[in-house]
Amino acid sequence: MRQIEILDSTLRDGAQCEGISYSVADKLNIATALDELGVAFIEGGNPFSNPKDAEFFHQAAKQSWKNARLVAFGATVRSGMTPEEDSGILTLAETPVEIISIFGKASVFHVERILRTTREENLRMIRESIRYLKTAGKRVFFDAEHFFDGFVADQAYAMEVLFAAADAGTERLILCDTNGGTFPDEVGAILSEVVRSFPGMIGVHLHDDNGCGVAGSILAAKQGAVQVQGTLIGVGERCGNANLSAIIPGLELKSGLACLPEGRVERITQAARYVAEISNVSLPAGLPYVGKRAFSHKGGMHVDGVLKERESFEHIPPEAVGNRRSLLISEVSGRAAVHRRVSRIYPEMDKASPELDRIAERLKEMEHRGYSYESADASFEMLVKKGMGDVPSFFELQHFKIIGEQNASSTAVVKVRVGNASEITAAEGDGPVHALDRALRRALEVFYPALRQTRLIDYKVRVMDPGAATAAFVRVLIETTDGTSTWTTVGVSKDIIEASWQALTDSIEYKLMKDGVAGKMDG
Amino acid sequence: MRQIEILDSTLRDGAQCEGISYSVADKLNIATALDELGVAFIEGGNPFSNPKDAEFFHQAAKQSWKNARLVAFGATVRSGMTPEEDSGILTLAETPVEIISIFGKASVFHVERILRTTREENLRMIRESIRYLKTAGKRVFFDAEHFFDGFVADQAYAMEVLFAAADAGTERLILCDTNGGTFPDEVGAILSEVVRSFPGMIGVHLHDDNGCGVAGSILAAKQGAVQVQGTLIGVGERCGNANLSAIIPGLELKSGLACLPEGRVERITQAARYVAEISNVSLPAGLPYVGKRAFSHKGGMHVDGVLKERESFEHIPPEAVGNRRSLLISEVSGRAAVHRRVSRIYPEMDKASPELDRIAERLKEMEHRGYSYESADASFEMLVKKGMGDVPSFFELQHFKIIGEQNASSTAVVKVRVGNASEITAAEGDGPVHALDRALRRALEVFYPALRQTRLIDYKVRVMDPGAATAAFVRVLIETTDGTSTWTTVGVSKDIIEASWQALTDSIEYKLMKDGVAGKMDG
Repeated sequence: MRQIEILDSTLRDGAQCEGISYSVADKLNIATALDELGVAFIEGGNPFSNPKDAEFFHQAAKQSWKNARLVAFGATVRSGMTPEEDSGILTLAETPVEIISIFGKASVFHVERILRTTREENLRMIRESIRYLKTAGKRVFFDAEHFFDGFVADQAYAMEVLFAAADAGTERLILCDTNGGTFPDEVGAILSEVVRSFPGMIGVHLHDDNGCGVAGSILAAKQGAVQVQGTLIGVGERCGNANLSAIIPGLELKSGLACLPEGRVERITQAARYVAEISNVSLPAGLPYVGKRAFSHKGGMHVDGVLKERESFEHIPPEAVGNRRSLLISEVSGRAAVHRRVSRIYPEMDKASPELDRIAERLKEMEHRGYSYESADASFEMLVKKGMGDVPSFFELQHFKIIGEQNASSTAVVKVRVGNASEITAAEGDGPVHALDRALRRALEVFYPALRQTRLIDYKVRVMDPGAATAAFVRVLIETTDGTSTWTTVGVSKDIIEASWQALTDSIEYKLMKDGVAGKMDG
Repeated sequence: MRQIEILDSTLRDGAQCEGISYSVADKLNIATALDELGVAFIEGGNPFSNPKDAEFFHQAAKQSWKNARLVAFGATVRSGMTPEEDSGILTLAETPVEIISIFGKASVFHVERILRTTREENLRMIRESIRYLKTAGKRVFFDAEHFFDGFVADQAYAMEVLFAAADAGTERLILCDTNGGTFPDEVGAILSEVVRSFPGMIGVHLHDDNGCGVAGSILAAKQGAVQVQGTLIGVGERCGNANLSAIIPGLELKSGLACLPEGRVERITQAARYVAEISNVSLPAGLPYVGKRAFSHKGGMHVDGVLKERESFEHIPPEAVGNRRSLLISEVSGRAAVHRRVSRIYPEMDKASPELDRIAERLKEMEHRGYSYESADASFEMLVKKGMGDVPSFFELQHFKIIGEQNASSTAVVKVRVGNASEITAAEGDGPVHALDRALRRALEVFYPALRQTRLIDYKVRVMDPGAATAAFVRVLIETTDGTSTWTTVGVSKDIIEASWQALTDSIEYKLMKDGVAGKMDG
């Protein structure tokens, strides 16, 4: 298999994304995850323009890297300066890193109207910067900014820029679609032409403003590019950089081009979710390959087809990228799907067993009432196990009261009984549900200290049958974590408080059941 | 400009997306928005498999449509049946709609292993279904499911399926990449071949499992497809359908292919956000063209470049798709867009007027706090008119209290002052918001009888920043009608009751203002 070098720019171009701000520790964590995934190069930042990035390179130099080499990014010398006079270039030369990615303009429009210099001076800036860094012992990649737009407007000059960089000793010529507007067929046509002049030297750096960043990158690799740049979860300026979590599996699993050490593509879902977490970004559920929904099947025909033959509705097996299939239990799904899901909890249960009938019946009834178990895995497990009599009784609600007024915190009072003991507590919160959650936990922690580990991490409200407006049914989904695992529960009622109460108690009971805590109702 | 037909399948394929469940009212709202955007066809659902979809088509038949034609979707006859025996086909024939999209398998693997029938029987099923529907007076589109995979595995049979459908009288042959794994270069190569046999008849229906749905659709249109199918915000099975909010601008603005009536592409951002809101889906911020971040510039060089020349870092102007630029460190964003919207309320207002500055400032501040006016037209109008001092004062809240307990209705007590009179009322409801709504209306109807005509018809809750769980901010959208018009208002708070209160009062004040009712605070 031909090898494609992957350069991840999450820490450089990704950090230019609205809403993202990495600490040095974040950067080291992400770089370590990328190294373990096995990308060839990690672009760590611009040590001249950002002191945090300079610090990152110093700390990274002390760490040992298994697969990746670090790359520092920076501009050419400024117009009218020699490298020796330019503090940017001097900083790059002194950064403890093997490779420097230097960017220059490949578009006459940018040279004349944005840099406001001459074509000749721009070529000099590129040439001298690369020569200086080579003399300082660095390997150099050259990012030809705005290359595709520049090539369309003035092909001769765009090529002149590449020749200048190559003459000066760059190893790689990276063709950038900085504004993200070039379509894959255009990328392919231009690239094929450029590759003829510089075989084995061309890389691409595409953006996703036209929604084609992944397609263009894959096509470029097929047509002779040796390096593909992007960011693992697609973060970056505006619509982001080409998304490596889609490009890497597309190349490795579907195009016969290797990017990672053998067997590593299976870790890409985990790596993408980890980077998203550190970046404080929620990964779109439908993200190709690595999204939560990427292999979920809902339509009856789809569920039926996948149960007969996996490949009927999946272009690759989810395990190949470390993701999971999910067959959604919905109005449209049949008995086979219910059995499959129940058998993860009770592996022995037979397809023809009367218990399965009872569970399927109950499920249908609950779904008719508006419950949805598509994502509420924990509530599904509680429903199945309660049906089997396998959940101990942990507590009994005696009553709750909620008092709210305008411009003030809500107050909740909760009284629970556990065995012969009763506990009444009150708590305030932002809104009635928040107050109720706090009061209930506080009351139960007295009896079940394990609940101190739990914390709500997501709360979703869905109004169903909205025709009835504020009297409509609401469905509440709650996601809880105890630090080691997370689970989702559901509640449905006309009253948002009652619905939240159901989801809260399901979540608490699930935690206790999962930990094997004994019920204390009889003691 | 050559014309490309756009078929939007949000209501059919989109509804098969995890987490999406549309009511009939949702469907009518989305269809109306798509019609106003100007797509050629709206696939409304499968009236046989889903009673909600059947109801949708009956209601839609009473409405007049400006640009779009509705399409009902369904399967061919089942194996071994004639159309006259097949309730699915009979239902389609009776559905009050001009066009039927009928799907059949174009892959031998699917025919033999999933349908478990013969190649010949599959051809018969397709042929007879189309003929029957044509005889019943329908126009027919044929969806060749799994066409690309089928073509690669057995080209002759895949083509035979198309010939059978064409012979039977279908107008369009839609080549489906049902599993979303085909790359654009493969789509292009196969399509060019097929177009030669069926010029002017070919459409494509792609999915995004490889992250290339947009690129493949655009390439197909360039290479001779006359119809492109997708969903406006990319919802659909697994990773979703090809995203029309990226395809349409790509075709219209960058490829010389027309899709919408002239001038409509400027409404696509608003339409996409509206559909997302109804779907209760949060649009990824980096979504091409229509995402909030699609034209936001953060890097210093980028901001500097855009201030010098817009096109330095934008492949199209954001106004072309009705989106806004935002410069993350400066103040210059969106003034023209604000003016555009304000001038609908005050047609005389000048772009340079200080009032516009004040409104833009206030809008920015509110949006920063989480308010969203994309669909809350009435709250936007209230904000503008209050800024101009054009809203009389109708009432003053003195206080409200809410009392809730488990298994019981919530009770709200509201006291308002109107002029010199005070009114205190109590009401019960299903949940605190319902009770509050009832109590407030009851108190105000004494002074403003016109409020008796109003009724809430929709209530949506959106949790923002879900990381903070139950203490996260919630955005409430309320839709109200008085029988002749409907309007939407918004409220934002950490407390769902406070957020609902804001939206409720905005809605009441809007009604009174709209009717020209005089404020009674001074009498």
